[in-house]
Amino acid sequence: MNMKHGSPYGTHRVLEPLGVLPQGAWKIDNSMEIYDNEILIDVSALNIDSASFTQIKSEAHGDEAKVAEIVRGIVAQRGKQHNPVTGSGGMLIGTVAQIGPALVGKCDLKVGDKIATLVSLSLTPLRIDEISKIHLQKDQIEINGQAILFETGLYAKLPDDIDEKLALAILDVAGAPAQTARLVQPGDTVVVIGGGGKSGTLCMYEAKKRAGADGCVIGVSPFEKDCRRMKDLGWADHALQVDATNALALMEAVAEVTDGKMADVVINCVNIPNTEMGSILATRQQGKIYFFSMATSFTAAALGAEGVGKDVEMIVGNGYATGHAEFALGLLRESASLRKLFEQLYV
Amino acid sequence: MNMKHGSPYGTHRVLEPLGVLPQGAWKIDNSMEIYDNEILIDVSALNIDSASFTQIKSEAHGDEAKVAEIVRGIVAQRGKQHNPVTGSGGMLIGTVAQIGPALVGKCDLKVGDKIATLVSLSLTPLRIDEISKIHLQKDQIEINGQAILFETGLYAKLPDDIDEKLALAILDVAGAPAQTARLVQPGDTVVVIGGGGKSGTLCMYEAKKRAGADGCVIGVSPFEKDCRRMKDLGWADHALQVDATNALALMEAVAEVTDGKMADVVINCVNIPNTEMGSILATRQQGKIYFFSMATSFTAAALGAEGVGKDVEMIVGNGYATGHAEFALGLLRESASLRKLFEQLYV
Repeated sequence: MNMKHGSPYGTHRVLEPLGVLPQGAWKIDNSMEIYDNEILIDVSALNIDSASFTQIKSEAHGDEAKVAEIVRGIVAQRGKQHNPVTGSGGMLIGTVAQIGPALVGKCDLKVGDKIATLVSLSLTPLRIDEISKIHLQKDQIEINGQAILFETGLYAKLPDDIDEKLALAILDVAGAPAQTARLVQPGDTVVVIGGGGKSGTLCMYEAKKRAGADGCVIGVSPFEKDCRRMKDLGWADHALQVDATNALALMEAVAEVTDGKMADVVINCVNIPNTEMGSILATRQQGKIYFFSMATSFTAAALGAEGVGKDVEMIVGNGYATGHAEFALGLLRESASLRKLFEQLYV
Repeated sequence: MNMKHGSPYGTHRVLEPLGVLPQGAWKIDNSMEIYDNEILIDVSALNIDSASFTQIKSEAHGDEAKVAEIVRGIVAQRGKQHNPVTGSGGMLIGTVAQIGPALVGKCDLKVGDKIATLVSLSLTPLRIDEISKIHLQKDQIEINGQAILFETGLYAKLPDDIDEKLALAILDVAGAPAQTARLVQPGDTVVVIGGGGKSGTLCMYEAKKRAGADGCVIGVSPFEKDCRRMKDLGWADHALQVDATNALALMEAVAEVTDGKMADVVINCVNIPNTEMGSILATRQQGKIYFFSMATSFTAAALGAEGVGKDVEMIVGNGYATGHAEFALGLLRESASLRKLFEQLYV
């Protein structure tokens, strides 16, 4: 066997433009002959990033066959499931099929292990052989195919005590509750925009835990159903039924329940554009905003804060935080109601 | 006189789409009859945002008449100098021509005061009557025209002891050194990408002041001239001549001068796209990145960090920080060499 050695960052797979990293590349090499520091995975399911899947479903007018065609088309064009409209990816689960000899002893995996990749599909070489099932409501696609994990690629071994679809759904947004845990202090007033969604629900739970009895956690959703659920789960001090793209309406609603003090921390978890200004107006001076949404526009946030004279710290949602996978899976073991909800929605 | 009362945020000026704030609007009303809580300004100069002006100059192939035509075209189309390609604006200087009666006693201005607006041109109603001079190297355009400042609009009175073009050049990027002052701790290793540019030079100065003798300040520029200047000014411990769009080259260069420890803080001040990954790879685990560049892509930053497993805090550059105008002007009074350089470049 005479394998080639690849870059730890996967630059050897970049086809165009040359000289960039795989995430920035338009097209990467998705041939499944591994380099000596790569891991080959037999893929069973893709979890598409929420902003990306929303865009694909919209383009397909909700038609499953058309969704499949769009997903296949992206992978055929780019060698990866990297949505050219939203710029975002997602993650996958599968089974370790082969481990490059240069990695033996350097990683804790063996052939046959079930893993989820924790790096974005936007940089992961992927080949789809068959799309077997599309779960329109769960942002999930079951496939037969293969993928490559680079030497620096993060992964999590799937736990025995948690259903794999559930684990995948949680791991996909594992960064959000981990970052919430770092941001929220006891007594804080926290607004979670999109608090009824997947990452939003985890952030609501973690925010209430950190803010404590003296804190105030406010969930925001345009949907009555989401607001009712937020109240039923018990972590929301207030559930505001407001469209966050209406910045002034959101500001007024938050002002009303906080006596004009506004939020210490705003966590933005919605997968639609034009919610930057609502986030900024809902935050107090010297407060913090965490943008977890991939639909966030950098310039809208930067210029928006300046435009209304808001001295706020705005943080780019980092999908990775040290230990985030274990942290997020731990939430399911910690809260029976969180686990029950996620089992209903994602299993 | 029977004036109408406007929204403090200027929403009464939005023409399309209705219901958004002026920054998010495609087109705003630039008629110069003021509402009772607006300020009318006779404009003498525009300072175009660096990313925007770079794009306009490139589209115009460096031709001054074509630059003027593009700038006039944007204002005619949108009622504001809001570059549709980059999404960014800039700022202006002028003289107070009229103050709405509802603001009398609420602001410290009087008719005839020279001011600079500290809110972006991307939300400021503007009418251009004449373009009298274009300074291609200074991102400045001298005009005759008028503009409107909303009730929440920030401004700075121009000081007597500093040339107005110099003040404008500094105020345009006043947020950068103010944020640097907050971020950098004694002993930190700081990388300033674009350290030879306007905001970059201010960040280099402030970073060295904060990091101190035990700290290490590293400037990055692709240009030999910039690197030489950074060394001559004396605030750079290292000046690296590297193209920051080459992420791997930047990582290797920073690794070499930091013995592989990488930066505690990276401040990105370059006005070109595709430098997110270089910023991420130059930062240590648990380090911070401040993106001041309007050319930053939110998804490239978020997915880039996740893709290489970097647990870094990435902050969206906020052009506003409390007291930033006085802070930035103070730097010119504090450092003779900073003032001399800026007088050479911008007066």
